[in-house]
Amino acid sequence: MQIAMIDDKILPIEELEPVYFDRGLYFGDGIYEVLRSYDGKIFAMDEHLHRFFNGLTAIEIEGVNIDTIRSRILMAFEKSHIANAKIYFHITRGSAQRNHICDAELKPNFFLTITELADDSKTKRNGIAVSTHPDLRWKRCDIKSLNLLANVLARRDAAKRGCDEAILVNESGFITEGAASSFFALFGKMLQTTPLAGNILPSVTRGFVIKAAKKIGLKLKEESFTPTQAICADELFIAVTTKAVVPVIKFDGNAIGSSEPGKYTKLLDKEFYLFTK
Amino acid sequence: MQIAMIDDKILPIEELEPVYFDRGLYFGDGIYEVLRSYDGKIFAMDEHLHRFFNGLTAIEIEGVNIDTIRSRILMAFEKSHIANAKIYFHITRGSAQRNHICDAELKPNFFLTITELADDSKTKRNGIAVSTHPDLRWKRCDIKSLNLLANVLARRDAAKRGCDEAILVNESGFITEGAASSFFALFGKMLQTTPLAGNILPSVTRGFVIKAAKKIGLKLKEESFTPTQAICADELFIAVTTKAVVPVIKFDGNAIGSSEPGKYTKLLDKEFYLFTK
Repeated sequence: MQIAMIDDKILPIEELEPVYFDRGLYFGDGIYEVLRSYDGKIFAMDEHLHRFFNGLTAIEIEGVNIDTIRSRILMAFEKSHIANAKIYFHITRGSAQRNHICDAELKPNFFLTITELADDSKTKRNGIAVSTHPDLRWKRCDIKSLNLLANVLARRDAAKRGCDEAILVNESGFITEGAASSFFALFGKMLQTTPLAGNILPSVTRGFVIKAAKKIGLKLKEESFTPTQAICADELFIAVTTKAVVPVIKFDGNAIGSSEPGKYTKLLDKEFYLFTK
Repeated sequence: MQIAMIDDKILPIEELEPVYFDRGLYFGDGIYEVLRSYDGKIFAMDEHLHRFFNGLTAIEIEGVNIDTIRSRILMAFEKSHIANAKIYFHITRGSAQRNHICDAELKPNFFLTITELADDSKTKRNGIAVSTHPDLRWKRCDIKSLNLLANVLARRDAAKRGCDEAILVNESGFITEGAASSFFALFGKMLQTTPLAGNILPSVTRGFVIKAAKKIGLKLKEESFTPTQAICADELFIAVTTKAVVPVIKFDGNAIGSSEPGKYTKLLDKEFYLFTK
């Protein structure tokens, strides 16, 4: 008899729900996205769906209709009645007995949750501390896949150091990005961040930060920089869908600028917020 | 209302089974193992459990009693009445709403399946074809984690080329290992394979192959080699728990040796089989 066991309980394998055989669980074989709404309005849905579709294409999950995904999201969002919502969703290649190779006809699984975002005004007012961690991730970090163990381990390390985010540093000593955010430095009126390539996520929030930077007259430098350079920055911040712009006031224990959220960082967050209207 | 959606179906988040919130699914935040039995006897259980425990320790999943895991496996195996069984199991950090950082008290999830192995005598008799693929995996391939998308993509590429395994090649042009196997070459009486380090799995089968090689008087060279060198080998084979030693007769379209399973490869498989008694 083919057997399954969940914790202490033995049962025939046929009795298990398909979710137990989800290739997301076996292999991380899926793509996810996180959207948020501001005051009842989902922000940058097209951009997120565009990236989501690119991810599915990159790992060859086929037959997913993006318009169907869009209507599902809108339907669930409407039903939630949450004004400031975090919308998480993923699609995996489907459920099947474990084998790297699967039937081409396998039906992808869609999963979504909508939860309420906590108020982040205090975090934005106070800023956060970050710590560096080796970037142990795979070579296709431009794909927003469910393979996130390296990110989890980096974040756990940061948390142990009393930090809210881990800033990942590659083997050449350059910062790539945060474990779950983009990372930016300001040197005077110059905004610097890692250029888009296979080693970082093409962050939607990053794109809007750059747009906001242009509007307030900042210059942009897309060039990698080191932790030593970061410590010397006038301002640092991370950018992430759920919180937009979050000031970084401490980097590996070193105070940044005047140990308070920087002037341009605050301006960028304000400009960013206008996009969400 | 907090909402979940599975395919087309919207439901309150509280109604979902914990497996939907498994960190294995969200992050690949777990460790797995594959055991097999030969004629009713599980092979190398201690070695596999030892590696499993090392993996859990490496990613800081705590509070798992290995003796409990051992008795669960034995109990399920006995109940299965399968002589030549494939025993898959994993432990994830547990189920919780999605957040990189989780409660330290979270209870790990255990999941196991036992299925019957197909007869592999034809594969062993005929040998297999393999193709190379860039090694896109993370920097801790010594950890047998659920982050396996790079392996899946490599295997899919191999399958498209009519091959049964992908041989991974790193940025320096050296072979690391198979997408789901160890990889070996024979040059005369010298057996060569990648040395153990962070970039390959400390394969249990690899250990027994080396033991068998010593018994039949082969010399061992633990040193990385390139695809060009592999093509010039007298014999090639992969080693994997479920099938032990599998001859490789074609490498990136090039015939190896006499296009038939090699002499020492067959001898190694025979010696290996004696360990399973």
